[in-house]
Amino acid sequence: MEEVAEAILKYEGVIELTSAQIVAQREKQFSEQEQKLKTRMSKVRHKIAIISGKGGVGKSTVAVNLAVALAMHGHANRIGILDADIHGPSVPRMLGLTGQRLQSGPPGAFPASGTLGIKVVSMDFLLPDENAPVIWRGPMKMTAIRQFLSDIVWGDLDILLIDLPPGTGDEPLSIAQLLPEMDGVVIVTIPSKISQVIVKKSVTFAQQLGMPIIGVVENMSGFICPNCGKRSDIFESGGGQKIAQELNISFLGSIPIDQEICEDADRGEPFIVEHPNSAASKAFMEIVKKIEDSLKQKAEK
Amino acid sequence: MEEVAEAILKYEGVIELTSAQIVAQREKQFSEQEQKLKTRMSKVRHKIAIISGKGGVGKSTVAVNLAVALAMHGHANRIGILDADIHGPSVPRMLGLTGQRLQSGPPGAFPASGTLGIKVVSMDFLLPDENAPVIWRGPMKMTAIRQFLSDIVWGDLDILLIDLPPGTGDEPLSIAQLLPEMDGVVIVTIPSKISQVIVKKSVTFAQQLGMPIIGVVENMSGFICPNCGKRSDIFESGGGQKIAQELNISFLGSIPIDQEICEDADRGEPFIVEHPNSAASKAFMEIVKKIEDSLKQKAEK
Repeated sequence: MEEVAEAILKYEGVIELTSAQIVAQREKQFSEQEQKLKTRMSKVRHKIAIISGKGGVGKSTVAVNLAVALAMHGHANRIGILDADIHGPSVPRMLGLTGQRLQSGPPGAFPASGTLGIKVVSMDFLLPDENAPVIWRGPMKMTAIRQFLSDIVWGDLDILLIDLPPGTGDEPLSIAQLLPEMDGVVIVTIPSKISQVIVKKSVTFAQQLGMPIIGVVENMSGFICPNCGKRSDIFESGGGQKIAQELNISFLGSIPIDQEICEDADRGEPFIVEHPNSAASKAFMEIVKKIEDSLKQKAEK
Repeated sequence: MEEVAEAILKYEGVIELTSAQIVAQREKQFSEQEQKLKTRMSKVRHKIAIISGKGGVGKSTVAVNLAVALAMHGHANRIGILDADIHGPSVPRMLGLTGQRLQSGPPGAFPASGTLGIKVVSMDFLLPDENAPVIWRGPMKMTAIRQFLSDIVWGDLDILLIDLPPGTGDEPLSIAQLLPEMDGVVIVTIPSKISQVIVKKSVTFAQQLGMPIIGVVENMSGFICPNCGKRSDIFESGGGQKIAQELNISFLGSIPIDQEICEDADRGEPFIVEHPNSAASKAFMEIVKKIEDSLKQKAEK
């Protein structure tokens, strides 16, 4: 992030300031940025974070396909995705946006634009190449996420989806603190018990931070052999529904394993556009309906 | 972590100290802990970190099964696993150790002991219950990991496997800095392109921090339908080998998808003990041989 690097250089150049002056300067910068963040975010009607305790449950896949499903459902050009996974951003590749750069103008930097006008911001757009690791500790990540919200010209959006990395550390904490008006979180799990246990941590996390829970999506739910049609529950089955019942939260739906989901993601083509009639695409569309209902109910309250 | 909580309380109780005194006190504590860490770790012959850029590629499954394979291969009672995934610890459940507590004695806290005397330390042993999230930013995680290395009575071990969370942030950085004598890292990937890209970040990360790379393991490599025997490359195929060639690092082996791996992990029974004749177990044993060869070669140098 050039601005981060610049900010650090600036600090290194001003060591002759007293610490009180530095503190005052920082406080001023912070409050300006906070104001900018509020202004930008006031134009985004709904904010939904996609979280999971465990990695690799298909959180980014779910985020991208939900974004596409929402765009197809009357929200074209009014959906954004903030890829808040600083170390392992994968949203750009899944939308065929790898190698893009953020274009800057006087009002700030503009998001990249993908399928159906989905606006995307990701750490990936700021790296010299796709293989470069971001070797950052927490505070730098918080700074980056804050800038993604305050310095990006998101414009008027119906929904901003925030794809968070797994766990309950710096990135989700930052988002919870920076966006207290968040509509809620969608929790992604796979059916296995180990995933269930770690997902329960996410639910407790969201509740402790006062983020409403929209519901649970079970991904990688059973595999149908394309040759003989026999179902194999590779990662077991029913875990998502079980968690939802146990914790008294909504169950949004199950997405079956489909080889094409992985292939499409790798090619940068949204699965639900390429395979609209697949069982998995239908599951995504059902989930989107439930999410929209939940947003409507909230608006009516 | 009780000690962390205590330490914080202690700091809150001493605000009448000058900041210079606090700094001096902290420095003393740090250097004592560093000394303890060096002494403890000098009794561990080899340290290997299991890393992956992307979550959910089966890193913990690989770590646990490699530990069991090593224990079966002449290292019973001399293998340790440090579960350094603070937010999503899953090693205890996979070894049937959920709900265990660390027992403390005068020399420090003792690891839990699993199958074949494998010693395990995990955040899970310090939580009130399995569902409790650890809502910590980076510095607290670094403190916990340091204590896991310095305050635990690991004893004499042949190999300590360190199961790191995905990404290139606080936890892997802490381990790289705390254990500069590390033998190397084993990198776990799934075949998909997205995983390959993120794994490349891990390789660059390890190289930048001077950690030798032992090799790459490809997990979830193809699924054989138990009904008709047809192979489906759910997460594509050959990605691990491709990465190894491209980056000129060793390829350690491919582990096929096996429904029993997930079921055994959930039951807390090590897969390679329960299903020694499966293709996946044989793959694990082959990988262990290659890792041992790599350690031997290093020792002969």
